[in-house]
Amino acid sequence: MSTGSVRAVYMSAPGRPVEMRTVAAPRAREGGAILETVASEVCGTDVHLHHGRLSGVPYPIIPGHVSVGRVVESRGPLEDVEGRPIAEGALVTFYDVYGTCGACWHCLVARAATRCPKRRVYGITAPASDGLLGGWSERIEILPGVRLVPLPESLSAEDFLGGGCGLPTGFHAVERAGIAMGDVVVVQGSGPVGLNAAIFSQLAGALRVFVVGAPKARLDAARRLGVEDTLDITAMGDPAARASWVRDRTSGRGADVVIEASGNPAAVPEGLDMLRDGGRYVVVGQYTDSGDATLNPHRHINRRHATILGCWGYEFSHLHRSLAMMARHAGRFRWRELVSREYPLEKAGEALADMESLSVIKALIRP
Amino acid sequence: MSTGSVRAVYMSAPGRPVEMRTVAAPRAREGGAILETVASEVCGTDVHLHHGRLSGVPYPIIPGHVSVGRVVESRGPLEDVEGRPIAEGALVTFYDVYGTCGACWHCLVARAATRCPKRRVYGITAPASDGLLGGWSERIEILPGVRLVPLPESLSAEDFLGGGCGLPTGFHAVERAGIAMGDVVVVQGSGPVGLNAAIFSQLAGALRVFVVGAPKARLDAARRLGVEDTLDITAMGDPAARASWVRDRTSGRGADVVIEASGNPAAVPEGLDMLRDGGRYVVVGQYTDSGDATLNPHRHINRRHATILGCWGYEFSHLHRSLAMMARHAGRFRWRELVSREYPLEKAGEALADMESLSVIKALIRP
Amino acid sequence: MSTGSVRAVYMSAPGRPVEMRTVAAPRAREGGAILETVASEVCGTDVHLHHGRLSGVPYPIIPGHVSVGRVVESRGPLEDVEGRPIAEGALVTFYDVYGTCGACWHCLVARAATRCPKRRVYGITAPASDGLLGGWSERIEILPGVRLVPLPESLSAEDFLGGGCGLPTGFHAVERAGIAMGDVVVVQGSGPVGLNAAIFSQLAGALRVFVVGAPKARLDAARRLGVEDTLDITAMGDPAARASWVRDRTSGRGADVVIEASGNPAAVPEGLDMLRDGGRYVVVGQYTDSGDATLNPHRHINRRHATILGCWGYEFSHLHRSLAMMARHAGRFRWRELVSREYPLEKAGEALADMESLSVIKALIRP
Amino acid sequence: MSTGSVRAVYMSAPGRPVEMRTVAAPRAREGGAILETVASEVCGTDVHLHHGRLSGVPYPIIPGHVSVGRVVESRGPLEDVEGRPIAEGALVTFYDVYGTCGACWHCLVARAATRCPKRRVYGITAPASDGLLGGWSERIEILPGVRLVPLPESLSAEDFLGGGCGLPTGFHAVERAGIAMGDVVVVQGSGPVGLNAAIFSQLAGALRVFVVGAPKARLDAARRLGVEDTLDITAMGDPAARASWVRDRTSGRGADVVIEASGNPAAVPEGLDMLRDGGRYVVVGQYTDSGDATLNPHRHINRRHATILGCWGYEFSHLHRSLAMMARHAGRFRWRELVSREYPLEKAGEALADMESLSVIKALIRP
Repeated sequence: MSTGSVRAVYMSAPGRPVEMRTVAAPRAREGGAILETVASEVCGTDVHLHHGRLSGVPYPIIPGHVSVGRVVESRGPLEDVEGRPIAEGALVTFYDVYGTCGACWHCLVARAATRCPKRRVYGITAPASDGLLGGWSERIEILPGVRLVPLPESLSAEDFLGGGCGLPTGFHAVERAGIAMGDVVVVQGSGPVGLNAAIFSQLAGALRVFVVGAPKARLDAARRLGVEDTLDITAMGDPAARASWVRDRTSGRGADVVIEASGNPAAVPEGLDMLRDGGRYVVVGQYTDSGDATLNPHRHINRRHATILGCWGYEFSHLHRSLAMMARHAGRFRWRELVSREYPLEKAGEALADMESLSVIKALIRP
Repeated sequence: MSTGSVRAVYMSAPGRPVEMRTVAAPRAREGGAILETVASEVCGTDVHLHHGRLSGVPYPIIPGHVSVGRVVESRGPLEDVEGRPIAEGALVTFYDVYGTCGACWHCLVARAATRCPKRRVYGITAPASDGLLGGWSERIEILPGVRLVPLPESLSAEDFLGGGCGLPTGFHAVERAGIAMGDVVVVQGSGPVGLNAAIFSQLAGALRVFVVGAPKARLDAARRLGVEDTLDITAMGDPAARASWVRDRTSGRGADVVIEASGNPAAVPEGLDMLRDGGRYVVVGQYTDSGDATLNPHRHINRRHATILGCWGYEFSHLHRSLAMMARHAGRFRWRELVSREYPLEKAGEALADMESLSVIKALIRP
Repeated sequence: MSTGSVRAVYMSAPGRPVEMRTVAAPRAREGGAILETVASEVCGTDVHLHHGRLSGVPYPIIPGHVSVGRVVESRGPLEDVEGRPIAEGALVTFYDVYGTCGACWHCLVARAATRCPKRRVYGITAPASDGLLGGWSERIEILPGVRLVPLPESLSAEDFLGGGCGLPTGFHAVERAGIAMGDVVVVQGSGPVGLNAAIFSQLAGALRVFVVGAPKARLDAARRLGVEDTLDITAMGDPAARASWVRDRTSGRGADVVIEASGNPAAVPEGLDMLRDGGRYVVVGQYTDSGDATLNPHRHINRRHATILGCWGYEFSHLHRSLAMMARHAGRFRWRELVSREYPLEKAGEALADMESLSVIKALIRP
Repeated sequence: MSTGSVRAVYMSAPGRPVEMRTVAAPRAREGGAILETVASEVCGTDVHLHHGRLSGVPYPIIPGHVSVGRVVESRGPLEDVEGRPIAEGALVTFYDVYGTCGACWHCLVARAATRCPKRRVYGITAPASDGLLGGWSERIEILPGVRLVPLPESLSAEDFLGGGCGLPTGFHAVERAGIAMGDVVVVQGSGPVGLNAAIFSQLAGALRVFVVGAPKARLDAARRLGVEDTLDITAMGDPAARASWVRDRTSGRGADVVIEASGNPAAVPEGLDMLRDGGRYVVVGQYTDSGDATLNPHRHINRRHATILGCWGYEFSHLHRSLAMMARHAGRFRWRELVSREYPLEKAGEALADMESLSVIKALIRP
């Protein structure tokens, strides 16, 4: 790489192969910064972006919404949320959401900034024409107002990206679940969001956590992460049998909390069958439209006195707190072991294919 | 009626006409009492009972779960929840749930006594073989432990039964909705539960309340009760148009709170289409299994960041507080005007037919 | 007034008389606006400012934190929180807080922007050297980012200022109290915050509301506002007798909710004596340091299982929602009648003196 | 011990030495049972009982409210909260509260059974004239309705009593604190309640926990239990310095949550000085009246936007869930090591003296 140009992966349109481009090296805007990318994650959303399953994506984009880099240039003082200065050379990640207006009804009245219409996300809804706003690139441009987050000293880029976007997303799902100490939790789905939800359920006071998912390698990881037992959906194909499996382990009542992190619409009625009367059900896995589900409002919602909680995106607080929890508990949960494989920029297409086939848990792009 | 025998309406089995029987007059058990029935309500549940749509009903039963009567006999001192004595001759209603054990996991750990397996309900799950445990009878037996509630002096039996079981049920739904001052609320369904939900939404701080339902007489009642506008589903048959009708009135966002009180499974996805991002949706109308509903987990739950709250039964506190609120606000809301017609015991079958055809809002049995 | 200069009231230093000054007419900054002042309130905080009882006040200041004006100049499009344009000539108020950073730990992690260290308030912590940032002036400068709020058509400046800062403050206190339908509420203090707390308690579902305060004119106003009964502290000087007065009206138990809006430290233990076991106590009146209070942690907090909730400032949502509620309920509560007297700019000192002596409920400055 | 008589320790009156008596062996009442005592705890409340600092104690009593025993007789089937039978010979503890009426305003409307006026507690408000209703005795009578709780197989009597009444009390305090994942927690007091609060804070998701207390042995125990740091109040006598010690460790802001478990009234203002703006403060240590405290309502409550939560007693759910959590985490927290010493019945007076001098953390009576 010369100082004058950098390489980046472009996703030009749904269904087209990603391609490498060489572009002029970015310079920091006033109040902004430039990162030299250390690594960026490949997540399920990238696969969905590649298939065009998200609406409102301004292709071409540079994928990679959660990344780690080193500050190589800044204009104006940078500081973290505590007001401490961030020096050049610091190893940082950043909150991938920007543009939130702070002035609309959602921001000010509903206090639900994740629903602000002006909200944009690096690597997802940031057009490449606006800059290097994605992590599958040798450089990342930090726009003014984007919140940089220094990695705690004890954590490497690999630790953090072993959690990746699943870290704050799983944290948010568990926060939304309102887990009480002693609760029994079932997580549907064993991808990064599901595994992080299983970790944070334990950290939030769950007595017992079960994971229902596939394939075997992910379920093995779940058990290493302290989950009491796992159910392989490829080995038990009948949803009613799976619900019985949960009831057999919960005095016949079902779980206090079920967290859907599977992305399969059919998981929703199945998960409600796993839930006890008066329980809480969090839907965090349906981040793209994968179709409808049929359920029974009497049995699944009303008579069950169920609380069903959709969970969209994450706020800065979720990133901030989940990262602090990771630093405290990295010895116990070893997130970095979730990274199955690393790919150079030129193999980004292969990374997408491996992610789609579930042959990796977590994949990194390392420019 | 001689002192030695009383008349009561029996529902012997699903699908069979109700029939009048004359039985021996009951005597109070130790700690219990006998009421002379003043009036008892006919509600949608009675129609469902008649069609056999509820599971676990120990036919034959004596219908009438919410009733008003006068104490004509007691054994042992009776007192209300404040510890004040209840004299013979007092006009009372009572909490229709009994048998809750206070010793099981649901009662003690989940603190969700409405899910106690030993819970029984007058007029619904109380077998006639156990006594006159329903209000469609000249006498009602108050079992030991059943909580009597004196009517406030300012209220008549007709006032209270104009609310009927819809009073605490609507109250519970609104409590569960967690209405914030200034919220916009849509109620789906204009039966007694829906109308009471519309009343209590206003009392709990809603800024604006809309009711979506039918027929016209019920929607007229809704507007008299302070509802800003109503939508007649017989005049606007397209669910998408109805959702647009709500969005047109809510800055395009949808309502902060939607309360389903219709009993129609298809109301659930429709109601979620009426809800704003981050809103709360209460499902209180699906007290029998009327079939499945199809919804989109991504769009309706996850991306919407929705909170969906099933609401089953009601607790003593809901009856206690809703009755106090009725006494305070009866001048403003005039519940007694919701009573469309009264029927003697011998016309109980006709009352059921009128309830089923929606030709009455609230019907009373007056022995 | 010529177009070239305007008059404004300056509070130069604690303990010094306020003074009128003539200054150059302000011009709108990019993204900002200029209001022609219609009226501005005089509140208890202004009295405290005059005595120097608040810390961190950058004297000289122009008092008047809640005001109404007409837009006479704007630079760049103005819009309300719904995205609707605000035209020149519109009658508006505005959220008096500005400068909140949106980037610090309080803003982003605690989501408690009222504790942001960069937060400033018109008329209180805005130095006169920064512009006409207070309402006791012929013109008010609206800085870029300050949220304008058009008055609903049905409301006049006098309606809104009859509530004044007590409107969102009382709203916030009631939101914080978490009033449940059927609760019994006692409000300590009968100034503007107390009266608004009494109004919003009713709107939020309180069954009965009592006000403990003085002088008689304010208690008379409270009863006109629907309060069930009032206790004149000048007629019943013994705090224990006052607590008994509450217990006599609450089955001996005390109130479900007590809201302190008096500003007197001794009100805190007295209010806790008025509270039932398990009740909620909101402290909203102690906005300046008026000294210490002595209470008994065992009896007042631990054994009482009390929840005590401090309530500082208000957020935009409180202003937005309380104003909408005022527009809906102005016929019932008639806030404008709380305005006892209006003063021209040159009588601002007299207004302060009348406010301090409690000889007015609400006073307005009308330039 | 002959089968015909048993020995028990009587506390006859405040200030008098406890004494051993021999009484007739009890027989189970219908629906009740008899336990052979394995061990019973000595807690701070016993010291207070001995000094007469609790009101409403019906001396003489048999102390020992939390105990473990073996079922030696039962009349009627015994079952646990899950409905599983409890056989004779089973090792059990029991929920020490009985008599709660389930019929009063507190039980039914406020759903706050810990405030039911009929509530009685083994070893505290149970008169010896009613039976062997305390654990400092060779036998304990289980009254009908008292909830037996079998010890999980993996736990011994010593494990459970190492937690003792501090286990559910600390659990309740942490539940009440509403700890969010990532919170920083300070516990004031290093006795059994404080240590259990420190344990459960970690299990509920606290990022960092600090304990402020004495003497050294207890603080050493706290650090072994995973607490990040401890402050010895005998070494740092100035409350302002102690609050600074906390602020130095929390970016100058104070802790998100402070839990008072000290019993010293002066701890309350000190703890509020340790709390961040918008934080939560739980008062669980003031179970007897040890005097008043002086605080500043402006600074400590209102401006701090503090939430202060009194925490009285515990419910069955707290015992049930805390015991399950102990079984799951006994390897990590080793509660049994908190038992400093065991005493036979005849040395009960010595146990009281050691408890009062804080020379033991947890003391057991072993008949």
